[in-house]
Amino acid sequence: MFRKILIANRGEIAVRIARTCREMGIATVAVHSTADRDGQAVAHADETVQIGPPQARRSYMYVPAIIEAALRTGADAIHPGYGFLSEDPDFARICAEHGIAFIGPPPEVMETTGDKARVRRLMADAGLPVLPGSDGTLPTLDDAQEVARRIGFPVIVKAAAGGGGRGIAVADSPSALCRAYRETTAVARTVFGAGDVYLERYVPAARHVEVQLLCDGHGAAIHLGERDCSLQRRRQKLIEEAPCPGLSPHLRERLGEYAVAAARALGYEGAGTVEFLVDHSGEPTFMEVNARIQVEHPVTEMITGLDLVREQIRIAAGERLGLTQRDVRPVGWAIECRVNAEDPDADFRPTPGLLEVFRPPGGPGTRVDSGFVQGDRVPSFYDSLLAKLVVWAPTREQAIARADRALAEFTVRGPGIATTVPLLRALLAHPDFVAGHHHTNLVDQMARSKGDSDVREDDVRTGAHR
Amino acid sequence: MFRKILIANRGEIAVRIARTCREMGIATVAVHSTADRDGQAVAHADETVQIGPPQARRSYMYVPAIIEAALRTGADAIHPGYGFLSEDPDFARICAEHGIAFIGPPPEVMETTGDKARVRRLMADAGLPVLPGSDGTLPTLDDAQEVARRIGFPVIVKAAAGGGGRGIAVADSPSALCRAYRETTAVARTVFGAGDVYLERYVPAARHVEVQLLCDGHGAAIHLGERDCSLQRRRQKLIEEAPCPGLSPHLRERLGEYAVAAARALGYEGAGTVEFLVDHSGEPTFMEVNARIQVEHPVTEMITGLDLVREQIRIAAGERLGLTQRDVRPVGWAIECRVNAEDPDADFRPTPGLLEVFRPPGGPGTRVDSGFVQGDRVPSFYDSLLAKLVVWAPTREQAIARADRALAEFTVRGPGIATTVPLLRALLAHPDFVAGHHHTNLVDQMARSKGDSDVREDDVRTGAHR
Repeated sequence: MFRKILIANRGEIAVRIARTCREMGIATVAVHSTADRDGQAVAHADETVQIGPPQARRSYMYVPAIIEAALRTGADAIHPGYGFLSEDPDFARICAEHGIAFIGPPPEVMETTGDKARVRRLMADAGLPVLPGSDGTLPTLDDAQEVARRIGFPVIVKAAAGGGGRGIAVADSPSALCRAYRETTAVARTVFGAGDVYLERYVPAARHVEVQLLCDGHGAAIHLGERDCSLQRRRQKLIEEAPCPGLSPHLRERLGEYAVAAARALGYEGAGTVEFLVDHSGEPTFMEVNARIQVEHPVTEMITGLDLVREQIRIAAGERLGLTQRDVRPVGWAIECRVNAEDPDADFRPTPGLLEVFRPPGGPGTRVDSGFVQGDRVPSFYDSLLAKLVVWAPTREQAIARADRALAEFTVRGPGIATTVPLLRALLAHPDFVAGHHHTNLVDQMARSKGDSDVREDDVRTGAHR
Repeated sequence: MFRKILIANRGEIAVRIARTCREMGIATVAVHSTADRDGQAVAHADETVQIGPPQARRSYMYVPAIIEAALRTGADAIHPGYGFLSEDPDFARICAEHGIAFIGPPPEVMETTGDKARVRRLMADAGLPVLPGSDGTLPTLDDAQEVARRIGFPVIVKAAAGGGGRGIAVADSPSALCRAYRETTAVARTVFGAGDVYLERYVPAARHVEVQLLCDGHGAAIHLGERDCSLQRRRQKLIEEAPCPGLSPHLRERLGEYAVAAARALGYEGAGTVEFLVDHSGEPTFMEVNARIQVEHPVTEMITGLDLVREQIRIAAGERLGLTQRDVRPVGWAIECRVNAEDPDADFRPTPGLLEVFRPPGGPGTRVDSGFVQGDRVPSFYDSLLAKLVVWAPTREQAIARADRALAEFTVRGPGIATTVPLLRALLAHPDFVAGHHHTNLVDQMARSKGDSDVREDDVRTGAHR
């Protein structure tokens, strides 16, 4: 087992990883930007190394500084968390070249999962249902128009190297497709350094259902059931739950089998997620594979009792999974609410600043993962996630009541600080959510019915990056 | 179901009850002394009524003020929590006379369980093993000496109306018994208003194992498995866990059956606990019945997934239990650590004062029940419980590691404030605890090996009041 792990991340996920390391008796190194000098990731680690200025490209994504910190502190493994370098095959290779274990899938797997057009074909070959769409990338607009004519509108154009919900656009007509093609190729070129895009049929009002995978390096591949992440806004998940409400036992089983088939086809190793869209008739189609730990992993932890970060570390250290598919017996219901420092009434503008009061809730069935304590400042350089509130209860109804109770307790005050707590409570109380009939467009529809003209149909998309 | 519940308690248990009420959609009334005006129980309730000065006899135990507050606010039930009026049959009767439901067992049951000598006989009749001892109370010292001669020393003398660990003394010789008899009768007369004492064989180095009961008003009586509460100091439990380590499946089953037999013999209703001593040979003997929710109930909640306060409320409202013994399937391991504002290096002297910094831990498998937030003052009038840290993990080994990790995170600072955190961490790391071989004298032995002459053999007793 590793003696020391460097955590190449910040905020709540860095704290999350440090907690499990401490429970496993593994020392930790926190690398941090100058903006995070007084952050909780630093407070939770045994050693800390400042690696650069606030800009992620010059700190959390600056490979030379991270590798140097690992070598200097004698870390024998790096946990990348989510975002930043977590799905970068080059980073994983550089780690290996320096004799440092990368806690994540092998680089070849991430190379495949990072190419959305390629993984789409691979999954179709593995027997997973994929949406009608282009066979690979689309070199010209004419190619795009031809595929769209064949499969019919609306279509969704996506950057092949995409992620983080960027480089995605929906088109419901040839002229809209013209615009969408130009936009996505431009974004793809600028953000991802490669202009390749592909196209699929667009499924409106779908459910976002994803399956958690665990695969060791000895051929064991199991799934831990599904999560529903349909409550999104601007590609960002707001509320996630496990299991997915209203899923038939048959479909649940099918999704699990698809996920394991995907893992086998990819030669997957570590923790990962296979994302699906489920349309209004209950038909699932493959969306993408996330080759990392996800923000919403705690809901799966709450119903299975497993510590996914612990499993990631054990697998990366070469240990065997030690449990079979039959050992996974989810119990009860878990809901995660993302409490962000954003103003839902001002187009979700981030509200960084001083947390004069920061009191997360407690009590039965209530877990909080946060990178902040009272008196901290929310920096303006990074995402606006204040805390993940995760609740567990025997039934979905009780879990919703518990989540609402805990949100009501959550007290955050500071000059200029607003949070998503009121929005989250409104979503928990929405009849569609209560009935388990919500879909990826619900938040958008709520915003429109409030007359918020800023939220447009194409703002609410699937493929949120976390 | 009740519409409004008055919580006749303070601190963490009042907050705990308010949380469940909110989740059930039941309004709450917090009654409070002037010392608790700014307390968290008040902050968590829908309505508040100040009922008197800090002294419990004039506020939290002053029945007229509590009944008046219930009538004035239209509360249709009262939850007494633990301590204070929670096991007072007269209070339960007065509630009933005013048309207010008392959330607890019927008064007749509490009358029996409150008479330790009487319940001892009743349990023996119900087939439970009881220690050799007096048949009822002991009117004179000669009676006590005669019983002690018959059963042999050491013996333990207890006030029949006792509770809170008061009115208990161990004697290892006739002269010591003379002293013990005088002391306990005096305490019993002063504290409990009745000088009756009884006597049992004293079991040194025993395990304190208790079984959680749930019984409805329709004849259903089940148990939720056991808790081990052997880590005590001066009758106060420090660390509790569920299940009990090293218990054979056969003994576990026997204890469960005894507890249900006790419930049937008592005509029990509500949540309750049957306490046992288990000696070094693994033989259990009945100790007492606690006719209330206990401080350590969350460890049972963590392994069963049940909300015991919810069950108490449902039962008091006349609902059926809705689950059978077969439905209770404990999973994993839970440990509770009581974080007190006390100085373990100064004879556990309470350290009230301002909580300048108060940061409970979070993350996976970590629950905190507390009546405080940062900036609060710990009053000097009540117990020194700052928070209950409760962790869950799949195995005992992981639960211990998690508890230690969470305690390491727990940050409490303020002028003069000391906590039991360092002691709790030392106990978690003690070889006897790690091996699951600890007994009720362990903390005492640790203190003596540190040369703390203040801790005497008879300071560490069973029968802690919570």
